[in-house]
Amino acid sequence: MPVDKRVVVLGSGVVGLSCGLALAKEVGYRVHFIARDLPEDSASQGFASPWAGANWTPFYSRDEGPRQAKWEEATFARWVSLVPSGLAMWLNDTRRYADNEAGLLGHWYRDTVRNYRELAQTDLPKGVAAGATYDTLSVNAPLYCQALARELQTLGATFERRSVTSIEQVFEGQDDIALVVNATGLGAKSIAGIEDSACHPVRGQTVLVKSDCKRCTMDSSNPEAPAYIIPRPGGEVICGGTYLVENWDLSPSPSTAQRILAQCLALDPSISSDGTLDGIHILRHNVGLRPARTGGPRVEVDKLTLPLVRSTEPGSALALGTARAPAASGGLKREVTLVHAYGFSSAGYQQSWGVAQDVLALVEGEIGPPQAWAGRAKL
Amino acid sequence: MPVDKRVVVLGSGVVGLSCGLALAKEVGYRVHFIARDLPEDSASQGFASPWAGANWTPFYSRDEGPRQAKWEEATFARWVSLVPSGLAMWLNDTRRYADNEAGLLGHWYRDTVRNYRELAQTDLPKGVAAGATYDTLSVNAPLYCQALARELQTLGATFERRSVTSIEQVFEGQDDIALVVNATGLGAKSIAGIEDSACHPVRGQTVLVKSDCKRCTMDSSNPEAPAYIIPRPGGEVICGGTYLVENWDLSPSPSTAQRILAQCLALDPSISSDGTLDGIHILRHNVGLRPARTGGPRVEVDKLTLPLVRSTEPGSALALGTARAPAASGGLKREVTLVHAYGFSSAGYQQSWGVAQDVLALVEGEIGPPQAWAGRAKL
Repeated sequence: MPVDKRVVVLGSGVVGLSCGLALAKEVGYRVHFIARDLPEDSASQGFASPWAGANWTPFYSRDEGPRQAKWEEATFARWVSLVPSGLAMWLNDTRRYADNEAGLLGHWYRDTVRNYRELAQTDLPKGVAAGATYDTLSVNAPLYCQALARELQTLGATFERRSVTSIEQVFEGQDDIALVVNATGLGAKSIAGIEDSACHPVRGQTVLVKSDCKRCTMDSSNPEAPAYIIPRPGGEVICGGTYLVENWDLSPSPSTAQRILAQCLALDPSISSDGTLDGIHILRHNVGLRPARTGGPRVEVDKLTLPLVRSTEPGSALALGTARAPAASGGLKREVTLVHAYGFSSAGYQQSWGVAQDVLALVEGEIGPPQAWAGRAKL
Repeated sequence: MPVDKRVVVLGSGVVGLSCGLALAKEVGYRVHFIARDLPEDSASQGFASPWAGANWTPFYSRDEGPRQAKWEEATFARWVSLVPSGLAMWLNDTRRYADNEAGLLGHWYRDTVRNYRELAQTDLPKGVAAGATYDTLSVNAPLYCQALARELQTLGATFERRSVTSIEQVFEGQDDIALVVNATGLGAKSIAGIEDSACHPVRGQTVLVKSDCKRCTMDSSNPEAPAYIIPRPGGEVICGGTYLVENWDLSPSPSTAQRILAQCLALDPSISSDGTLDGIHILRHNVGLRPARTGGPRVEVDKLTLPLVRSTEPGSALALGTARAPAASGGLKREVTLVHAYGFSSAGYQQSWGVAQDVLALVEGEIGPPQAWAGRAKL
């Protein structure tokens, strides 16, 4: 039986890993990761995944984001199944505060989560216009990614640490690549052949706290100063945060850290051993860049002709080598297929499993099931 | 004979490496590096050193920057001595263009470089107000750092890959640290215990080109669109650039890349194999964040009391753990000594060896020469 060509997943953040797992596990593709940062790099600011709060809380109404809602429902169901393993954790009585009724997103996910109920005015802190409570889930971001990677490795997936600045570098000297899944997050902005100028960062600063607090609070009642408390498996709590659009600053701001801790303490004094700022046990100050995209996430098939044509419109302004007109490349001209999966901003974790299902369907539609799988299906 | 305590150098960019080499080689200190990024990480955007043009060209007049001028003279002399090894390379007939006579910095370095001569108006391109020509030097930034690291290793220096977010983490459980040299560049902004808010990035975008061009051109005649061509050892040329203050964006901008190449080609068509944009052989698009500091570089001794006092003024807003009043820390309170060496912005390479001499003097002033060295000196 012939060996199938590989599917290369570019990027090993939560989206790339989830796509790879769906491909390797559900249909048996041979999966190979190429990534600058790998799941074990849990202190790297080069990608967003290590820094996420990684709780499940929608950001759009179903009308504003029908794709997102579908992805989130799929991921929620998946995470519920992971609770017994300890990878996901229930956040009972989560409180969500908004600056107006619209901030509760039409309550579309009331039947997805458990025990959803709108909060009465009398149950809301001063200054909060609307609120809801429900039981949702979180994961521990770096541990979750590492668990996905371990499962992938048991399925035969391989990982290569390599920084790719052009899609051409993925295919260079390779004849056994069937397709590339592009899960490069913010990288999609400047990888030659993609160069998606709609990509931009949304800077998030958080404080990682050691605490037994198990209650999640999401307070968006003041858009100038968002605050959230996200417990996660392992006796840790993420206190946030910021949503600074187009801000690439990777250094934690001391004044922002103080603002975050003061607000979080007011929302839930149990994050501190003695109810004071001084009693908060800080493990780390974090900054991560959420990989956002104007117009929303990009999940679709794309065809590219290699070699890239440099500097013309349409073409690639960041292509490497010398400019090569297609006519000059002789027999080397080739069309390659990409499936994009990037631009998830704050929602990468909670949408990851639904996105992976869509990516799997797109890959199958392009290249069909693996030979080995088709053979097995016939048995 | 007792073994001397170690000098820890925090950061292994060109400044840290140069300081470490002076300490280990000239006075025989035991040197240990702790750094998030190591010299072999030549594709890491986590530090500035891999991305420098790394030619020797002053940015300040002697009046504006007397310290800088001294450091640069020392480094120039050092680099001249490295030419035979191939680590440094002469850039003959370098052209420097400015937007006014002041941009030539009072010609202070005319006797440091070779063959310095002011250019006549008739020798200047259209739009250039003033210019000079001289023979100066460049190094290949990543290769230079790796050569420093190799020399350090032969001298017994050790390297530890570790991300430090607080000065306390350097000393935790360590009794054999005599002093810490802080060469963390932009990291000084957000490492607890330093938290220097004067630090900020100056974003530089360049294009690395394969070319036999050996002539350096530095064109600052249009402050809105600086352009430079810096040949370096290895048949490579750095084409730049940008000086964007407080801009942390690590993604190469396609339009900036095109602007840079067009200007550089106009300045010197020999960077292209056929004199056209299409004939420029691009190896890589680079972005690096120059570690600048309002008020200029910081090279001085600093004393810090551990544990850090959290969140008070004066104190550390980014200290980890719980807040510990000095009284609560029992016998663990200790004073530690730092020698700072950061904030060199565009000039880290060309000032590195002079800075290292100053740091060496400061270290000796604080802790004296090593026992072993003192013993040897008596022989």
